[in-house]
Amino acid sequence: MSFKPISEIGEFGLIEQLSAIAAPTIKNAPGLVEGIGDDCAVYRTGGPTVQVATTDLLVEQVHFDLLTTPMHHLGSKAISVNVSDICAMNAEPRYALVSIAVPRNVPVEMIEELYRGMAHAASRYGVAIAGGDTSSSPSGLTISVTMTGETTQERLALRKGARPGEIICVTGTLGGSAAGLKVLLREKAMMLEQLRNNEPYNKDVMAELKEYTGAIRCHLLPEARHDTIRFFRDSNIVPTSMIDISDGLTSDLGHICRRSGVGAHIEEARIPVMPDARAIAEEFQEDALTWALSGGEDYQLLFTLPKGRYDDIAGNRDISVIGTITEAEEGLLLTDIYGMTIDLADTEGGFDHFRQ
Amino acid sequence: MSFKPISEIGEFGLIEQLSAIAAPTIKNAPGLVEGIGDDCAVYRTGGPTVQVATTDLLVEQVHFDLLTTPMHHLGSKAISVNVSDICAMNAEPRYALVSIAVPRNVPVEMIEELYRGMAHAASRYGVAIAGGDTSSSPSGLTISVTMTGETTQERLALRKGARPGEIICVTGTLGGSAAGLKVLLREKAMMLEQLRNNEPYNKDVMAELKEYTGAIRCHLLPEARHDTIRFFRDSNIVPTSMIDISDGLTSDLGHICRRSGVGAHIEEARIPVMPDARAIAEEFQEDALTWALSGGEDYQLLFTLPKGRYDDIAGNRDISVIGTITEAEEGLLLTDIYGMTIDLADTEGGFDHFRQ
Repeated sequence: MSFKPISEIGEFGLIEQLSAIAAPTIKNAPGLVEGIGDDCAVYRTGGPTVQVATTDLLVEQVHFDLLTTPMHHLGSKAISVNVSDICAMNAEPRYALVSIAVPRNVPVEMIEELYRGMAHAASRYGVAIAGGDTSSSPSGLTISVTMTGETTQERLALRKGARPGEIICVTGTLGGSAAGLKVLLREKAMMLEQLRNNEPYNKDVMAELKEYTGAIRCHLLPEARHDTIRFFRDSNIVPTSMIDISDGLTSDLGHICRRSGVGAHIEEARIPVMPDARAIAEEFQEDALTWALSGGEDYQLLFTLPKGRYDDIAGNRDISVIGTITEAEEGLLLTDIYGMTIDLADTEGGFDHFRQ
Repeated sequence: MSFKPISEIGEFGLIEQLSAIAAPTIKNAPGLVEGIGDDCAVYRTGGPTVQVATTDLLVEQVHFDLLTTPMHHLGSKAISVNVSDICAMNAEPRYALVSIAVPRNVPVEMIEELYRGMAHAASRYGVAIAGGDTSSSPSGLTISVTMTGETTQERLALRKGARPGEIICVTGTLGGSAAGLKVLLREKAMMLEQLRNNEPYNKDVMAELKEYTGAIRCHLLPEARHDTIRFFRDSNIVPTSMIDISDGLTSDLGHICRRSGVGAHIEEARIPVMPDARAIAEEFQEDALTWALSGGEDYQLLFTLPKGRYDDIAGNRDISVIGTITEAEEGLLLTDIYGMTIDLADTEGGFDHFRQ
């Protein structure tokens, strides 16, 4: 009998196989509106609203490095990434359950700082931390946050629902998180190099980081686009489909297309690449567009609207229209600034935890 | 600046400090009925029901050992322990979100087996697995399950609510899980010893395990007392307070007493110690009562009822009345089979993840 390593089927392959195993359990759940496959599970509880719920696992050495991540920021991020999933359903975040597995040698003060970061972010989004679980860990800090949110059936936005001819919109700017990570990893390498050479830590290097603050902030302290959800509510807008950008624009647009049974055509010139990311990419001799397309962790909202609703968002300078939904056969295309059209399906995939 | 190791304040101390940090976040949550401090968070969503939610983290080498734990059992247990928390609120379990962090070298087949165990248990309890998250792990498997449940305000049972004069009841038998763990740890030690000596694994030893099946099953494959919740519903019983026994009878009764502002007096002769646990304790020259009082992980329900409701449970042979709720000043007392009264407060505490 031979065994298959997870890296062979990848993270999305694994999710697909596990979803198939879990599928029979949803048969007896008449209140379930959406199960596995969207940013949140969606279910009815008999009231006037629908409930949404999401969960995110943050694992040391996989999602964060304690050498480059202040605990307060980490706590804030753990809350924000879940709020981002709730916002992707066009819902209001409500309650969070927080579990942590902590190595025995971690000082209490560090965990308190982590929770202060969580409490600070939770308060800002109007989320109540209502429970959780604590455990020791033989190695490495693990944080699991589950969050519920609330919306109405009418306001609910799923990944499915995009139709050919609709416009594709994205909030804020992209590529900042990948650029920030790049800078932090270089900083870490320099720090370790100085330690190896027994040199004192050079503060001048730290000072240089100032010019990268915007991008580093994108990576360490992302903010969920709760403001966009409020804007939708006040403007009476309901996206026909929506997702938050956690894997990368290409991958997440791919999710919308697959779930909606459509294709998409976006234009490079319209993609809001973060100016700081462009500057950093130049310094590293890398490509900022690639970061914007597949860097991930930007936590902006990607959504579709009927063309006729364009005027409703035209006044919001924080929303960019980047392309059009097409028929499924047309696939996932990008027209670059030279007018060349590229098939994004080849570059799709986003971040895969199990790829080696 | 000096730092405090978590072991210095213990798991309950840590939870207390973190709860204090999280407390301000619940200010803006008018729908929250109960936050941190019960088996589940409880909140209203505008419908005729109240929602409950709980989360449990299972960490390799802390909560389970892959050498002695079949993956199918582990999956089932991950679901059951959460259902147990939902039952402790006198609620019906509904939806589960499952997150796993998996080392890269773990074969897909193992994770599928884990999910089959989860799906099997979920189906039996009527729970739908509705979402989750997957991640790689630098070392060790971590499983995080969050579950929601539903009940009505009238049927809701909290840890608080016990009043002096009420009877203290427990379902099933106790001490089985601790006894099963004891046997499994001895088995593991023998297995490792044989490996060290390059001996082939001795199947005769495995065969001997048969007589311990009941206790091992208690540990590896505990069942939540969903049947008791159904019995309560059919008999129109609402416990005045309830908790599931995860830390141990003494510790969990202590939780009810503290939250209710009462004391408790239980009798050794009435505690339903599992007969298999008694036999195993004799073999190991240990004390089965200690396992029943502080072994933990039995996942039975501990609850209180007004004396006048005794007749309603008298016919249920799976429920034992083990004592009486007293005034707070009387503390937590046990009268042993010789008529001696012992202060359980000295032995309280239950399992602490951070004690060394």
